[in-house]
Amino acid sequence: MTAPIRVAVLGPTGRLGSAICRALLDSPDFRIAGAVVRAESPVSGEDIGTWLGRDPIDCRAETSLEHAIETADIVLDASLPGMTVAAAERLASLGGPALITGVTGFNREQSDRLTACADRLPVLLAGNFSLGVAVTEALVREAARLPAADWDIEVHETHHRRKADAPSGTALMLARTAAKSRGESLESLATWSREGVTGPRKTGSIGFAVSRGGSVVGEHSVRFLAELEEITISHRALDRSIFARGALAAARWMINGGAGRAAGEYSMQDVVAG
Amino acid sequence: MTAPIRVAVLGPTGRLGSAICRALLDSPDFRIAGAVVRAESPVSGEDIGTWLGRDPIDCRAETSLEHAIETADIVLDASLPGMTVAAAERLASLGGPALITGVTGFNREQSDRLTACADRLPVLLAGNFSLGVAVTEALVREAARLPAADWDIEVHETHHRRKADAPSGTALMLARTAAKSRGESLESLATWSREGVTGPRKTGSIGFAVSRGGSVVGEHSVRFLAELEEITISHRALDRSIFARGALAAARWMINGGAGRAAGEYSMQDVVAG
Amino acid sequence: MTAPIRVAVLGPTGRLGSAICRALLDSPDFRIAGAVVRAESPVSGEDIGTWLGRDPIDCRAETSLEHAIETADIVLDASLPGMTVAAAERLASLGGPALITGVTGFNREQSDRLTACADRLPVLLAGNFSLGVAVTEALVREAARLPAADWDIEVHETHHRRKADAPSGTALMLARTAAKSRGESLESLATWSREGVTGPRKTGSIGFAVSRGGSVVGEHSVRFLAELEEITISHRALDRSIFARGALAAARWMINGGAGRAAGEYSMQDVVAG
Amino acid sequence: MTAPIRVAVLGPTGRLGSAICRALLDSPDFRIAGAVVRAESPVSGEDIGTWLGRDPIDCRAETSLEHAIETADIVLDASLPGMTVAAAERLASLGGPALITGVTGFNREQSDRLTACADRLPVLLAGNFSLGVAVTEALVREAARLPAADWDIEVHETHHRRKADAPSGTALMLARTAAKSRGESLESLATWSREGVTGPRKTGSIGFAVSRGGSVVGEHSVRFLAELEEITISHRALDRSIFARGALAAARWMINGGAGRAAGEYSMQDVVAG
Repeated sequence: MTAPIRVAVLGPTGRLGSAICRALLDSPDFRIAGAVVRAESPVSGEDIGTWLGRDPIDCRAETSLEHAIETADIVLDASLPGMTVAAAERLASLGGPALITGVTGFNREQSDRLTACADRLPVLLAGNFSLGVAVTEALVREAARLPAADWDIEVHETHHRRKADAPSGTALMLARTAAKSRGESLESLATWSREGVTGPRKTGSIGFAVSRGGSVVGEHSVRFLAELEEITISHRALDRSIFARGALAAARWMINGGAGRAAGEYSMQDVVAG
Repeated sequence: MTAPIRVAVLGPTGRLGSAICRALLDSPDFRIAGAVVRAESPVSGEDIGTWLGRDPIDCRAETSLEHAIETADIVLDASLPGMTVAAAERLASLGGPALITGVTGFNREQSDRLTACADRLPVLLAGNFSLGVAVTEALVREAARLPAADWDIEVHETHHRRKADAPSGTALMLARTAAKSRGESLESLATWSREGVTGPRKTGSIGFAVSRGGSVVGEHSVRFLAELEEITISHRALDRSIFARGALAAARWMINGGAGRAAGEYSMQDVVAG
Repeated sequence: MTAPIRVAVLGPTGRLGSAICRALLDSPDFRIAGAVVRAESPVSGEDIGTWLGRDPIDCRAETSLEHAIETADIVLDASLPGMTVAAAERLASLGGPALITGVTGFNREQSDRLTACADRLPVLLAGNFSLGVAVTEALVREAARLPAADWDIEVHETHHRRKADAPSGTALMLARTAAKSRGESLESLATWSREGVTGPRKTGSIGFAVSRGGSVVGEHSVRFLAELEEITISHRALDRSIFARGALAAARWMINGGAGRAAGEYSMQDVVAG
Repeated sequence: MTAPIRVAVLGPTGRLGSAICRALLDSPDFRIAGAVVRAESPVSGEDIGTWLGRDPIDCRAETSLEHAIETADIVLDASLPGMTVAAAERLASLGGPALITGVTGFNREQSDRLTACADRLPVLLAGNFSLGVAVTEALVREAARLPAADWDIEVHETHHRRKADAPSGTALMLARTAAKSRGESLESLATWSREGVTGPRKTGSIGFAVSRGGSVVGEHSVRFLAELEEITISHRALDRSIFARGALAAARWMINGGAGRAAGEYSMQDVVAG
């Protein structure tokens, strides 16, 4: 039996971060070796096991990255863009361990800095940790090669009634992938919503339709509609735990049986490809 | 064998009207006994069979209602609101024949005048001639009785890429029926589209999502989403001919084996109920 | 504030029974006043709260119905046919309290005995406690009135990979309701599966299609397919907790604000109708 | 403007063959240069335009391949396995023109003979001429690489009420592609239907569910169901004309702007790849 993978978690107290921590605690293959919270966090100093309502694990939330990664094989990040970029730069200068982040919403400058770190550090930018969503994205990329003049692309997503923005980040990611397959930016192709007199559909555009209700965790469908036939690629998440599960799969992929990965920018596509 | 039902058609040259005429020609149970076009129509005076690319049927398009209905058992209307109301009033004063209309878009005053005619004339207001849509509407009415606090209503519709308005008239009709079941007006409940920061879903609201692409004739789904369960009622039209077919079913229902129907306002719901 | 409804639970240790007990514990409107297990159950004598991993509630699992119902306002049954029938007959002879059962699989003789009890006792036979399924059933009943010659009925259900029988009980119930709407028995109409040379579809038949995979809690769709149009009614359960929730709703309906219900046989349709 | 592509059609009078002929007549890019019927066909000697209810095109149905291909750039085949193999061997010995066939149901020996021809002749074996189905197949191949232990594959197909066999050839093709992606034969993985006591789902198996009703031209969905998430790839054909359209696309691809293709065995996957 191999030793468990030791993980430092950035942002362990948010919805995603705490789900990741729980999944780590539940898996014999992993151990939480560090947990970093922001300077002003009230959780600072608490045992992270206790904080999650489990047994104490002798690992306290700290505000210093340095200390948290001392014994870590890998860093799983569910914090916020600022902390992500700062951590990436520090890890790059230290020469590791590798960073896997599920954080989104980086601005241009932050993205550039992350990309620069990837010259010296393996960095996996996940966007969405679900393996199923990663496969869905690969399928959409493939299908979007169908001629834009004939095959209209329409995205429909449904989320629970509490979701406060639209379309979802995953819908945007899928549409962006489709647009890129067609050599265009999503911004130039998107029809964000339709209401009233819309005129006929613009050839080559990508339309969005958004539904909200109940407790739907996340449904996405990308339809390719041609004259008299239609292809649909859809994904449905039934529980948020799939995100934590995907994060652990990403960590396993990055560790690569102990061999690790070369410096570079990776995505969940690489994890799916194995 | 009984004699065919003799039908006068108002607006025989539009998309719906010509489809109805073709269906009448194709059915041994019906005969086109009159056809009324607007005063300035270039089709005026032409044989309506010839105009449809069929054999002549000895029935010319005319601009006078009076003459067209001379031998008709029933009037099928696919014209425009102004002609519909004028025809209804003339038929009411003549004491018949009964009027079946698939025209929509009446303003308040026109609706009131039609309702007044129904005191003296059987008038069927169809909105949508599809029998399947009529049944779908009945199901939505039933399901919408579910408590609004628990069951969110979301309408999603898809139509072909040339459709120039949103949401579709049928989507509006279904949502209106749902709103009415809950004792509210659609206007007070509707969320017409979602884009950007929307905030959480408003309890009791009815949301719309619209897709456009390919050659989709018409797909409507009304979802009822609760905590951890969901009911969906959906209808799909595969060909526009179902509308003409429903118009003929409405005519048969109105003729009622020769007995006819009493003066009053009817809908496709009555046709479905049989 | 009114006093909580006191419930005796039959079969509190099975999957449905324990879910019902948990829901009762979590609701301020209810109290578990008794719990009956079969004679040889190892749980006999244990506090039912403790057994569920909660705080003790001073209510022990017993093997005697008599004692368990001493202070109960209502009996919720998730046991097995034999216990259900025995309990119904005892309750009928005692004059109450009312019985709500989610047990299925009664043979003809057991069904007859339950029906006989309903002369003296309010008995609600649930089949499936989900409110959404009950509404779905009502919609299917309505839609199945469409002419069988034109509208083909097809049932499709999906469940998780561990489910060991097909089609599901709920699929059978929905199909039975449809058959009854058409004045037929399901047995005379059912096409249970299709494989190889099937010949054309038998007019008026009801077809079944079954999928198994993943962790799907339960999806049912009943399609009505006509020439060129289609109506679908579907239900999706995202979590088994909806069954316990429906059981509590049935109990509230039966208590009826303290007034209770008259002797008779009831179903979830009555609960939905309110 | 380039000259139209001259096509010889084998089996021009069947459902697929006549649809292909009509599409050829309707396209300015193509001309019917020959039409081969079986020896005993009553259509032999008739002008193929006239036979299709169009204007005569000075091209008579003949029973000799030789004559029919005299001026043809390509051969489109919608006949039957025997004629297909005979034609392929004759074309191979003549050195062309290339053969595109939509015929299915070859036995092992016929398949081997076709493969042998592909050494000397470009042969495209279509199975299903729909471009959308070809893309769907490519997506299924990709998605089926997901680990079989976690992702259950379920195929569901719906066709019109007259279809007399199950599952459809396209469903079989999609499932075969999925099985091949997993390094297995479909025969070893298939669960053709489910009824009664089935036991839990066999890990790695591929399940089929079949619905029949109305006038559905063809719907196929391949679902990948994992613990708590699901990916679905589906295709819907709204009209049989998509098959003829795909056949013409295959012909254009094979002609390759006049350059033609090298001898070899091709599929619609190559047409989609462009």
